Amino acid sequence: MAEQLILHEYSASGNCYKVRLTSALVGRRLERREYDIMKGETRTPEFLANVNANGRIPVLQVGDRFIPESNAASFYVAEGSPLIPADPFDRADMLRWMFWEQYNHEPNVATLRFWMRWVGADKLSELQRLQMPVKRDAGVAALELMDRHLAGREWFVGAAPSLADICLFAYTHVAGDADFQLDLYPNVTGWMERIEGLPGYVPMTA
Amino acid sequence: MAEQLILHEYSASGNCYKVRLTSALVGRRLERREYDIMKGETRTPEFLANVNANGRIPVLQVGDRFIPESNAASFYVAEGSPLIPADPFDRADMLRWMFWEQYNHEPNVATLRFWMRWVGADKLSELQRLQMPVKRDAGVAALELMDRHLAGREWFVGAAPSLADICLFAYTHVAGDADFQLDLYPNVTGWMERIEGLPGYVPMTA
Repeated sequence: MAEQLILHEYSASGNCYKVRLTSALVGRRLERREYDIMKGETRTPEFLANVNANGRIPVLQVGDRFIPESNAASFYVAEGSPLIPADPFDRADMLRWMFWEQYNHEPNVATLRFWMRWVGADKLSELQRLQMPVKRDAGVAALELMDRHLAGREWFVGAAPSLADICLFAYTHVAGDADFQLDLYPNVTGWMERIEGLPGYVPMTA
Repeated sequence: MAEQLILHEYSASGNCYKVRLTSALVGRRLERREYDIMKGETRTPEFLANVNANGRIPVLQVGDRFIPESNAASFYVAEGSPLIPADPFDRADMLRWMFWEQYNHEPNVATLRFWMRWVGADKLSELQRLQMPVKRDAGVAALELMDRHLAGREWFVGAAPSLADICLFAYTHVAGDADFQLDLYPNVTGWMERIEGLPGYVPMTA
């Protein structure tokens, strides 16, 4: 596939990093367009009409068509690469971790990071403040579940890195931004080092 | 694939219905094991150790292996069927709607349904009560986005029904249980009728 890929993104977002890291690992070129979500640049009438009616980034542009949702965009970029297992069970198991990431991990670990480092503790609403301990507990539970799963395993699915690893890595490796203590999860930190050692790896700040 | 499939489920859950409806549409037999989530039957040490460490249903059992997460389990069941588009863009676009469902639709529409019809308004915590109007607005926004997307379209992705339609249908068609007014979304109600007319369709109560 030689079509042009454009990533509409906010580069500090872990969700956007998933697509960049996937592209780097599979060696596909990605043009980047930056939007400042703190200034509402993904909620303008133009963005909603032309890029994503849901007002969120990342969005992967493929020619003149658009794929929102970080994990779906990463899936498109990884098509045909070893990051998507050929075995049907492993492929579904990979998706299982990617759906789990969006339901159990991102709304807790990533949202706390955003509230604490971007919005700021003093600017949170009462509802957000009340949700913080709930999200803290759920984030810890997610990291513990990952750590238990990785006991005796190198990768989340099967015997090789897959998109599940990439998508889970994005917000896990910056969980310290939200005061999660990653050193409590040695299987997770070992796994993060293996990801950082993959050929083609790029850091979030690249 | 002739291996035995067992669905570990709570049959009133829309997430479990996704897997049953997918199986019915593709003609794969599914054995069913019922757990009462209101009695904590998916949080027992046995369930956590043997079925899903995340303590949730549905879980699809394939031989002696397990796939949690409704959309991943449905993907496994639908492998090789027309419910998964062969075109790479359409396949990623299908996943986009499935990830969107888990992030923007289910936590609002399905959670309100659960709180209102299973937990009961008088038994909600203060935090849950405070979240209700936020989830109401987000649920309405999700249904509006679906209705706009379906304007001039028969199905969510491409020109044929896909897993995206099945996964979105599960909680949309019972959104009235949470007092969402489906008649406000004529494109959605027309689309629901098309799903109910698919060969092999089974209702949630079957």
